[in-house]
Amino acid sequence: MPQTNASHDPALRSWIESANDPGTDFPIQNLPLCVVDRGESDPRICTAIGSSLVDLLELGDAGLLGEPDDDVVLALQGENLNLLMEQGPEAASALRRRLQSVLRHDNDALRDRAGLRAQAVFPIDGARFLMPVRIGDYTDFYACMNHARNVGAMFRPDNPLLPNYTWVPIGYHGRASSVVVSGTPVRRPHGQVKADDQPVPALVPSAMLDHELEFGVIIGQGNALGEPVAIDHAWSRVFGVCLVNDWSARDIQKWEYQPLGPFLAKNFGTTISPFIITRDALAPFHAPALARGEGDPRPLPHLFSEADQREGGLNVTLEVFIQSEAMRQAGRSPTLLSRGSLRDMYWTFAQIIAHHASNGCNLLPGDLIASGTISGGTRDSRGCMLELTWDGPGVPGSPPPGRTPVRLPTGEERRFLADGDEIIIRGSCERPGFRRIGFGECRGVILPAQR
Amino acid sequence: MPQTNASHDPALRSWIESANDPGTDFPIQNLPLCVVDRGESDPRICTAIGSSLVDLLELGDAGLLGEPDDDVVLALQGENLNLLMEQGPEAASALRRRLQSVLRHDNDALRDRAGLRAQAVFPIDGARFLMPVRIGDYTDFYACMNHARNVGAMFRPDNPLLPNYTWVPIGYHGRASSVVVSGTPVRRPHGQVKADDQPVPALVPSAMLDHELEFGVIIGQGNALGEPVAIDHAWSRVFGVCLVNDWSARDIQKWEYQPLGPFLAKNFGTTISPFIITRDALAPFHAPALARGEGDPRPLPHLFSEADQREGGLNVTLEVFIQSEAMRQAGRSPTLLSRGSLRDMYWTFAQIIAHHASNGCNLLPGDLIASGTISGGTRDSRGCMLELTWDGPGVPGSPPPGRTPVRLPTGEERRFLADGDEIIIRGSCERPGFRRIGFGECRGVILPAQR
Repeated sequence: MPQTNASHDPALRSWIESANDPGTDFPIQNLPLCVVDRGESDPRICTAIGSSLVDLLELGDAGLLGEPDDDVVLALQGENLNLLMEQGPEAASALRRRLQSVLRHDNDALRDRAGLRAQAVFPIDGARFLMPVRIGDYTDFYACMNHARNVGAMFRPDNPLLPNYTWVPIGYHGRASSVVVSGTPVRRPHGQVKADDQPVPALVPSAMLDHELEFGVIIGQGNALGEPVAIDHAWSRVFGVCLVNDWSARDIQKWEYQPLGPFLAKNFGTTISPFIITRDALAPFHAPALARGEGDPRPLPHLFSEADQREGGLNVTLEVFIQSEAMRQAGRSPTLLSRGSLRDMYWTFAQIIAHHASNGCNLLPGDLIASGTISGGTRDSRGCMLELTWDGPGVPGSPPPGRTPVRLPTGEERRFLADGDEIIIRGSCERPGFRRIGFGECRGVILPAQR
Repeated sequence: MPQTNASHDPALRSWIESANDPGTDFPIQNLPLCVVDRGESDPRICTAIGSSLVDLLELGDAGLLGEPDDDVVLALQGENLNLLMEQGPEAASALRRRLQSVLRHDNDALRDRAGLRAQAVFPIDGARFLMPVRIGDYTDFYACMNHARNVGAMFRPDNPLLPNYTWVPIGYHGRASSVVVSGTPVRRPHGQVKADDQPVPALVPSAMLDHELEFGVIIGQGNALGEPVAIDHAWSRVFGVCLVNDWSARDIQKWEYQPLGPFLAKNFGTTISPFIITRDALAPFHAPALARGEGDPRPLPHLFSEADQREGGLNVTLEVFIQSEAMRQAGRSPTLLSRGSLRDMYWTFAQIIAHHASNGCNLLPGDLIASGTISGGTRDSRGCMLELTWDGPGVPGSPPPGRTPVRLPTGEERRFLADGDEIIIRGSCERPGFRRIGFGECRGVILPAQR
């Protein structure tokens, strides 16, 4: 299970000065991995440090990360992180150690080679990010009870939470092909919608486009088909994590989702952040699992371990911002829509992974598993417009609660997202005695529906 | 839209004599593609003809399929069919023409080269098939109304068919990683099950393991994210088709599927046949779409075209056989469980593809889209044990119909599948004036649950 070590020492500094700024997402204790289009060549695996990116193929070619035939060095020639993932957790840890060594303030191997540095180190600003991983399968969960209860209360006021919720980490398969990297615009989908006052449905642009604040894990080491994963080994199957926006078209969802679940309401696009924060970087930020409520059952044995209860949670603060077209034109910064915590997950990722593989389903390197919408118990911590604008919960049996739109600094109002709106998700981990690490941004702007 | 041409001429014969047997699945008019592990080398793309396989890499290397730098020849070096698919429909058609030329009775280019023939042509019996495609995303539909109505009637006797069914081709995302090729054993999954008379669920081996007779299409040419596919172009996006067994654990499904649909009840394994029957080979077997019932609405415009109504159906006979362990030991052949027709699909594949892409969802080469369980209107044409053993439909408001187990030739009875049972799906197309083509077999035997 998670361990902190010297690589998390807050006194560790880099010769890249911006990495030592207290507010940076990317101190030398973080070192997330990403893939960048540098124009003239194949995609490059990079790490982020301070306000810079470092091209790991250049470092590998220069012999700074090990022998040329070293597996870790060879894996950096891939066009995404999958080769590295396939080598198992030790390879990722080795890469982190070597990078931290090359980048620490007292190592001159790269610092004092001006030519190599000019080639390998370049600004994050203006970088063109690509998908960091080739996702095989994408699974989306529903692991935050506040969200499940809010959405349930809207559709089933007297019975918001179904009986299986406290036993089964509810999840469904998403669409891998339409997962895109931060910065990719998302086109408003058309879909079949049936208005309550209309006898028949129509194909129209969605009028209820929403974001969903989620958090994702990327699988590193997989399991063979037919072989479950024990809960105490589950977290070790994670290569790293990212921010996720699971765009949703509520009007399409409402008409299509019975009886087999959401489909076209979701699969037109899912945005992930470009940076994969490694499992090692997260080690200091584990926390106890969410305490179950009174009356909630103890999970079945394959979903329960003392160690997971003690440290299966993650102390991540998550924020959602919006910037409308009018805000951009007026030069206004994005404004906060909500702030929540990953500690509000009812099920831990170890429970989710153990559940997912409990029937022998094989998880493979590069698979994305997302949390589902993360919502807190207060209105300002709700992770989607559907919940943010909802005046509930109401009292069972009473009239349904109303809706109050979100007001933007321009005076604009939003019930759902408008064309030109950009949604920006940010996340970070803090703990006394440790450097804060951040997750970068997960951004996407809404394009108008195709004519 | 579909056209027949000289390549379907029933008089066309091969110098491979077994291809001229009237009963063969693989006359020279068929020429399906598959991938075989030949032991000493990389996986080989092959075609099936009569009782033989022909190694297309060998033919390509010998110059029998075009110039060495021809795109079609280069695509045959892949370890699956994805490279060929990515080249678009013309490449597949060109390969078919060249193969048919090499294999026809009056062509001596391969026939009379004994050394090459010995290397390239080998028996189907004993071949080790591999997955013919790398599946990016797998989507499973629910496109047969008989199945939807039967299953609906079991769970909602007074309201078997939900209001969206006649408007929306209902589908959900499946799991790509656990799609396996025919012949791969399938392990009985564990899962959370809650018995009606128990207060809490338990993790147990599924006691209600079922097959589902399905039919799949493999996407050839994809669409860009955000770009729908017009219904009259939809069928041309199909590279080929295969048989599918969507194994299902009904007891797991019952407890988990609300509110987001089936998940662990399905993703422990899905079996496909090794042979991809190409779109060209299917051309003579198109048929009118299923006539909609009185009172059924006309589909929305993006799901409707005269051409699709006229020939969007496929005349495929589908059969399911079972062979228990006791039957194998007694030397008994597999016995027929059901026989149905793909013409019972309420939605055509063109409608399904147009729907799937209507929100801009990108379909990619190698994607698998399955029909959902194919059931006819009679009991002996129902495509899964859940339906086969059901004495319904009943009359709304009356007691629920009972269940009668299926009786095997050994006297054994089956409500659901037992360990050691092998399910074998076969399919074929027949039409007067044309050679019958077959789909080979989609087989899987149930292994006992892991201890």
